[in-house]
Formats: sequence, C-alpha cells, structure tokens
Amino acid sequence: MANKTIKKITVVGTGVIGNGWIARFLANGLDVIATDPAKDAEIRTRKMIDQVWPTLEKQGLAEGASKARLKFEPDVAKAVMDADLIQENVPEREDLKRKVLSEIARYAKLDAIIASSTSGLKPSTLQHDCLHPERVIVAHPFNPVYLIPLVELVGGEKTSKETMKIANEFYQSIFMKPLLISTEIEGHIADRLMEAIWREALHLVNDGVATTEEIDAAIVYGPGLRWALMGPFLTLHLAGGEQGMKHMLEQFGPALKLPWTKLVAPELTETLKSKVIDGCEQQTTGSTIAEYEQRRDDFLIELMQLLKKYWPDTKVIGNKY
Amino acid sequence: MANKTIKKITVVGTGVIGNGWIARFLANGLDVIATDPAKDAEIRTRKMIDQVWPTLEKQGLAEGASKARLKFEPDVAKAVMDADLIQENVPEREDLKRKVLSEIARYAKLDAIIASSTSGLKPSTLQHDCLHPERVIVAHPFNPVYLIPLVELVGGEKTSKETMKIANEFYQSIFMKPLLISTEIEGHIADRLMEAIWREALHLVNDGVATTEEIDAAIVYGPGLRWALMGPFLTLHLAGGEQGMKHMLEQFGPALKLPWTKLVAPELTETLKSKVIDGCEQQTTGSTIAEYEQRRDDFLIELMQLLKKYWPDTKVIGNKY
Repeated sequence: MANKTIKKITVVGTGVIGNGWIARFLANGLDVIATDPAKDAEIRTRKMIDQVWPTLEKQGLAEGASKARLKFEPDVAKAVMDADLIQENVPEREDLKRKVLSEIARYAKLDAIIASSTSGLKPSTLQHDCLHPERVIVAHPFNPVYLIPLVELVGGEKTSKETMKIANEFYQSIFMKPLLISTEIEGHIADRLMEAIWREALHLVNDGVATTEEIDAAIVYGPGLRWALMGPFLTLHLAGGEQGMKHMLEQFGPALKLPWTKLVAPELTETLKSKVIDGCEQQTTGSTIAEYEQRRDDFLIELMQLLKKYWPDTKVIGNKY
Repeated sequence: MANKTIKKITVVGTGVIGNGWIARFLANGLDVIATDPAKDAEIRTRKMIDQVWPTLEKQGLAEGASKARLKFEPDVAKAVMDADLIQENVPEREDLKRKVLSEIARYAKLDAIIASSTSGLKPSTLQHDCLHPERVIVAHPFNPVYLIPLVELVGGEKTSKETMKIANEFYQSIFMKPLLISTEIEGHIADRLMEAIWREALHLVNDGVATTEEIDAAIVYGPGLRWALMGPFLTLHLAGGEQGMKHMLEQFGPALKLPWTKLVAPELTETLKSKVIDGCEQQTTGSTIAEYEQRRDDFLIELMQLLKKYWPDTKVIGNKY
C-alpha cells in the first residue's frame, strides 16, 4: 500500500545513511536513482545492498522489489528531474547541505518532495536558498535506516502543510513511524536525547570512572532493556508505584539539583511538573498501572529470551575479582 | 547454583525496589525476612508478590522457591540478626540511610554482607557510621528488580575485597549481571546516563518543544531499539562505517561544541579520543564490523516482531495532519 503519488525516488549522497535509505526504498518496491560524487560510490552502494538483501528478504520484500531497480546517475540535475521524492544525505555541514539542496530545488519537479536527512540542522535554514521552498522538509532517519522505523519530520517556516501531509503518508507507506515535530530545534528530538547520554558517557570516560565497555554494559543489561518498549517518561511513571510520575517527581525531583552529572537541569517549576505528570497520565489512559507493569514484564521475559542469542560475551561483567 | 554461603536474606524497606528484591530472592529459592515501619507494609508486599508470582513462574522458579518463605519482622534488630545478606532499600535520603545502615551493622552477623540499593549515594559515605564497615557495599538494582539483570556493585574505602567477591558471586547466582564499579561517584554509572536523558527530556518539555508522549515515541521507535543490544559507544561505532568510532569522532566530534543541548560537553582531547576509539575496538575484537552489523540486524528483526505485540497505540505518530 505504498503511497500512489510517490513512485520514483532519488537519493543524493550515498554514505551509511544514504545507502540505508536506498535499501529501504528498494525493499518497498520503489525505483531509485542514486547520485554521489565519489568515484567508487556505485561499487560501495551495490556491495552494501548485496550484503543486506538477505536481511531485507527475511524482513519481507514488497511485490516487485528488486536490486535492479537502482540506477546511478552522476549528474545531479538529471538524477533529480523525474523524482517524486528526493532524499538528501550529504555530509552534515550547513554550507554544503544548503548548496546541494538549492541545486536539487532548481531541477526537481514543482510537486516533488525534497527531504533532508540532517540530524542537526533546521529546515528553515536548509530551505533558505531553495526555489519553491514549500517542498523542503527534514526527514531524519536512524541507523540502520532499512530496519529502524522512526523518522522525524520537521517543516520549516516556508514548508507547506501539503508537503508535510504527503511526506507523512509516504513514510508510513514504507513502514516507518513518522514523528511530526512542530518546533524547529537543532538536533530535533531523538538526537538531543542521544547527545545527552553521549556527553555524560564521554565525561565518565574522560574522568577515568568507566571504560566504553563498562558504560555499554551499564546500558544493555539495565535501562536499555526497557527503552525498546518505554521512553524515559513512561519508565519513570512505572517506577513510581501507584502514584506514578507524581511520586517520582516528589521523591527524585530534588535530586535534579544534586551534582550527579555535569549537565545542567531545568528548574522543576509547578508548570513543568504539571506538564510531565499530565503527559504521563494521558499516555496511560485506558489501562491501569498494573496492566502496564504486566505488559512490561511479559515483554522483558520474551526480550531476554531473545537476547540470550545476541548479547555479547563481555569481560567487564562479574569477573573482576 | 545459588551461592552456598548465602541462604538467609533480610530486606529492609519494602517500597517498589525492596519488593522487587523480595520477589527475586524468593524466586531463587531463598529465605527472606522483610522489615518496614509502615503499618500496611506486609499486606502491600504480599499483594505485590501474589501479583508477580505468575510472571516469576513464567521466568522459571528455583527448586523449593515459595512465597511461604517470606516472613515479616517489625523489629530491625531481630530481622537482621541471622541474615547472611541484608539488602537495604529505605528512601533515598543520606541521613536516613546512614542511620538505618548503622543500626543494621550493630545487629548483623560479623560475616554478613550489608548491601544498600542506593541509586545515588557513595558507599564510603554510607559505611561511615557502621561497625565493621568492611561488610558494607552498594548493590544498585533496576526496576523491575525481579527481571532486570544489571546490579551495580560499588565498594567504599573500607569495604573488603572478600565482601566484593562474595557479593559478586551471590548476585550472579541469582541470575544477575553485576557490574563492578571501581570509582565511587554519585549516581554510579547507569543512573548518570539516565539522568542525562532525563534532564534533556525535561528541557524539551519545559521549552514546549515536545510532549512526554512525543519524547517517549522518539525513543521507542528509534534509538531505544538498539539499546537492549548495544550501549552508546557500540551504537556509534557501528554507525561509522568501516572506520567505526574513529570516523564518528572526526565527523561528529565538532558537533559536541554546538549548542544542541543545554548540557555541557567535555573537551574532545587526543587522550579522550584514544580512550574511546581503543575501547570500541577492544570491545569488538574477534569479529568484523560487518559481522556485528549482521547480528544487530538479525536482532532488530526479531525484536520488532516481538514488539508488534507490545508497542502502545500512540496518537503522536503519523496523524497530526
């Protein structure tokens, strides 16, 4: 049930993210033109597609899906002129992305969607030099793009509602979960959260408190198990007993002021408290906390069963003494 | 194969964490005495144990495991006097924990292990007022304690090596993954990483950028999927293509200086770079990046199959327009 208006895709820039998009588009039975100035781009991309194709088959291919539906076209103008959607994935530098996007906009169809995979830049900045900027959005995916469903969709000041609507339907049609973000901020949402962990992890390594392997172990055997099912808010809501988030904010709110991390916390005002508590209660409407706990536990048992096959042998767990 | 020297456990403080420990200890066929000053503590605990018992059965009970092996004893002195290991879980306040731990230490056997579940406090602080402080450690678990394997073990200045060794063996014997942390810091390791995400998430809600539900969705459909298998370092190592972490630090290192989050980043010195790159390479010795990618992908396919049953219906994904 792929979106009918979008049949032809052009992928600009074929690094890890660009190639991940190509794999997802091909698996969904779409035609893909790829373009990249690197000499060996086509060889690398085809090698990567060959490598992940058995994985895509395992996941399930759309009717008509074929590696043969990928073409390379070195000339950007020619590569984008017939595309219904252009996915841009050039290196994360503002000047470069703006230049490439303005070039794409010059040659793309008037009703084409021009989507940037940028992890950090705002769509208003990126569409600034583009003709018909109402076509330009951010559609930020996560590695590996052919498997992870999240895509953050952000419109700029000049992006049309129609563009957002079509993009939203299209990414859903290729089995993604589009999160529509209404406020433009650098790093969007998920990368800001990952960046926060990343900074703290670097501090721990820098201060000699832990190695990268110990930090990774502290995630995979603990909090990481819950994050595939529940985000940070629902996790804490369920740790608070019957009173949920309300109890957690009362008990652990003061800890925000402790020098636990090198990271600055916001003031826990009444307004912020209400937003957080109301948000969690709204998310869990219709089920009791006990029902959520039961679902979490059932999931964790199945997940840990699954992980027996996959968890690494780590030397940092349980044998230092 | 429960540790032979530890048969009798006392749990002091029966909130969410204390009860979680009781459930895990009982499921592993141990005798448990619980103590808590709250009037309805025993009723609440037994209700919770009844509620999770079918889950523990699903997970697999040890021979002889029984709910009947839990006794309540209101008097702390009597509760701890015969215990081989005492697990303390009173509210997270330094004065209270120090007072309770010194009381426990006064009445506990000389060769008992006294473990605090503190999420934030350092063992050297907690053992300060205790007789025979060499018995006192931090053993910090994660909710739900009866399922999540990670337990952070931290010794204080006066903790003996023998105590650490016995504790390490004991928690492994009840199917946990003890992470031995050699540097005492507030929040240990995992909670500092969670706290970092938590602070950034609160900023996003506070600034009106996203709701709690949107933030949770940004985790569960994206980065959260990888965190059950790989921590932050291995995740980035695999996102860097063939060059791994080295490439990531070169490409995204400068972004650390961008004002992406409200959180302060460490200076990316050559020393820090080496620690991170060497750490990642050491973690992945023996397998190629391609093999790690294949394992990640196989895991993600099975995980997403499993999550079809468990993911919530969320209103924030894909239908704002």
